[in-house]
Amino acid sequence: MLHDAEPTTKPTTLKLTEDDVRRIVREEVELAFKRDPAARRASIIASKGTLDWAYPPLILATTAAAAGMDTSIFFTFYGLNIIHKDSARKLKVDPVGNPAMPMPVPIPDIVSAMPGMVPLASRMMRSRFATHNVATIAELLDAARDIGVRLIACQMTMEVFGYSEADFIGGVEFGGAAAFMSQARRSHVTMFI
Amino acid sequence: MLHDAEPTTKPTTLKLTEDDVRRIVREEVELAFKRDPAARRASIIASKGTLDWAYPPLILATTAAAAGMDTSIFFTFYGLNIIHKDSARKLKVDPVGNPAMPMPVPIPDIVSAMPGMVPLASRMMRSRFATHNVATIAELLDAARDIGVRLIACQMTMEVFGYSEADFIGGVEFGGAAAFMSQARRSHVTMFI
Amino acid sequence: MLHDAEPTTKPTTLKLTEDDVRRIVREEVELAFKRDPAARRASIIASKGTLDWAYPPLILATTAAAAGMDTSIFFTFYGLNIIHKDSARKLKVDPVGNPAMPMPVPIPDIVSAMPGMVPLASRMMRSRFATHNVATIAELLDAARDIGVRLIACQMTMEVFGYSEADFIGGVEFGGAAAFMSQARRSHVTMFI
Repeated sequence: MLHDAEPTTKPTTLKLTEDDVRRIVREEVELAFKRDPAARRASIIASKGTLDWAYPPLILATTAAAAGMDTSIFFTFYGLNIIHKDSARKLKVDPVGNPAMPMPVPIPDIVSAMPGMVPLASRMMRSRFATHNVATIAELLDAARDIGVRLIACQMTMEVFGYSEADFIGGVEFGGAAAFMSQARRSHVTMFI
Repeated sequence: MLHDAEPTTKPTTLKLTEDDVRRIVREEVELAFKRDPAARRASIIASKGTLDWAYPPLILATTAAAAGMDTSIFFTFYGLNIIHKDSARKLKVDPVGNPAMPMPVPIPDIVSAMPGMVPLASRMMRSRFATHNVATIAELLDAARDIGVRLIACQMTMEVFGYSEADFIGGVEFGGAAAFMSQARRSHVTMFI
Repeated sequence: MLHDAEPTTKPTTLKLTEDDVRRIVREEVELAFKRDPAARRASIIASKGTLDWAYPPLILATTAAAAGMDTSIFFTFYGLNIIHKDSARKLKVDPVGNPAMPMPVPIPDIVSAMPGMVPLASRMMRSRFATHNVATIAELLDAARDIGVRLIACQMTMEVFGYSEADFIGGVEFGGAAAFMSQARRSHVTMFI
C-alpha cells in the first residue's frame, strides 16, 4: 500500500509522524529566535546632562538604528539638556569629581574647582573629539533623526525642571515612563545611561 | 474509504500536510513571542546613593510593576543608602561635579564647594519635586512594596560598608549578585542605574 | 484500510490531528524559551574610570560567566582606565561630588577638594574591600579572563584619548560599537555601567 501511494503523492501530503512534526517545529522555532523581534529593538535612557555623557546614548542609538533596529532614546532628568535648543551652551564637562577624566597635567580638585575650569575642560573635550573626527552632539542628533531614532522627552522631569515643549529641538516627542517601559519590555537592548 | 470518512469527521482529524504543520507552528510561535516571559520581567540595579539618582530606579520599577511585570531592584554600592532606615538624612544631592544640575543662578564649583551648599541643593531638589507632585523617596518605596517590587540588598557591599540587616527598612530581602543575575538573564528590561 | 494499518503501526506514525500538533508545538516552544539563547548572553559596557565604578562591571561579568553565560565587557570612555596596564595608578576614587561615599566623618566638599584627598579616599576604598575579602581589580581582571569573559576596548575612544593597543593588558580585543551592538541585541542582560 505504501508502495503504491508514495510515488504518486506530493511529499507534503504524506502522513506526518510526531517525529516529523517535532523536527518541523524545531526548525521553525530556531528561525523564529533568529528573527526574535526583541533583537530588533533598542530602548535607551539618557539621564546625564554633561558634554561627555551626551555622546554614549547618541552613538549607541545611531549604531543600533544603522543595524536596522527600532531605536528610542528617552531623555529624562539632566539628559533633557541634550535635546534642549540651547544644548551647545548647556552641555559642559566638569573635571571636578571625575578623577578619570584625562587631563594633560594632573590637577587637584581645589584647582579644578576654580572659576573658569568648566569652560576650559568643555573646550578641551570638544576639540579632542573634533580632532579625531567624532561627530559633534548637534551632528549626532541630526544623524539620529535622519536614521529614524525616536527622541522622547520625559514629561514628568520636564515639568519638574520647568521646561516647556518649545524648549526642545524639532522632531522630539513627549511621553512618560510607562510609554518607555511598554517598548523596553519588548527590547533586548535596554540601557540606562 | 477516505471519501466516506471525511465528511463525517471533525476537521482536526483530517490528514495534516507539512504546510499545515508549518502554518500552525508559525501561529503558535508568534503567540509565544507575544507572551514571551522575558517581556514580563524587569531587573534593575540601583548603585547610586544621592537624592537625585534615588528617583530613577524607584520610578522605573513602580512603572514596570504597574504594567504587570515581575520587578526587582538590587541595591548595591552607594545604592544601599536608598533603603537605609536613615535614608532621609543619607540621600543628599551635591551640585559639585554636576554642571548639569539646574541652579537658579550659575555657581562656579569653588562656591558650590562651600560648606552648606549640599544641604541647600538637597532642599532645593526635594521642594522642586514636591511642588510638581512627584512622590518623595519614602512614598515611592512604599508604593514599590505595595505593588510587589522586590527590594534586594547586596550582601557583599553591605559587608564592605559595614551595614547589618537591621539597618534597612522592612520588606527588604538580602542576596548576592548571582541571585540577581539568575533573574536578570530571564528579563528583557535590565538596567544599571 | 485504516483499520488494517493502524494496529500494526508504531504510535509515531498514527495520523496526527491539528490538536496533537498544537500540543507538540507548545511543548517545543516552552522548551525553546527555557533554552532561549538570549538568556545565555550578557553584554556589559564599562564607561567609568574610577576605582569604585571599576568593580561593578567586573563583578557582574564574572558572575554571569560563572553561571555559564557568554559574557563581554566593552570598555569605552573613562572605562578604558580599567584595562590599562597602568590601571593601579589610574583608578582613583574622588569623594568630591559624591556625597554618598561613606566617610568616617562627614567632610564638606571644600575640605575634600584639598590636594591629597583623592589618594586618601582611594586608599580607604582599597583597604575596605581588601578587609572584606573582595578581590582587587587586578584579581577580578584575571578571574574574568580565566573564565572566558571577553574584554573589548572601544577603538573610537582609544583614538580620542590617545591610547594605542600596547597600552592595554594582555587578552584585550579591540572593536567598535557596531560589533558590541551585534552581540548585545542577542543578549537579555545588557547594562551600561
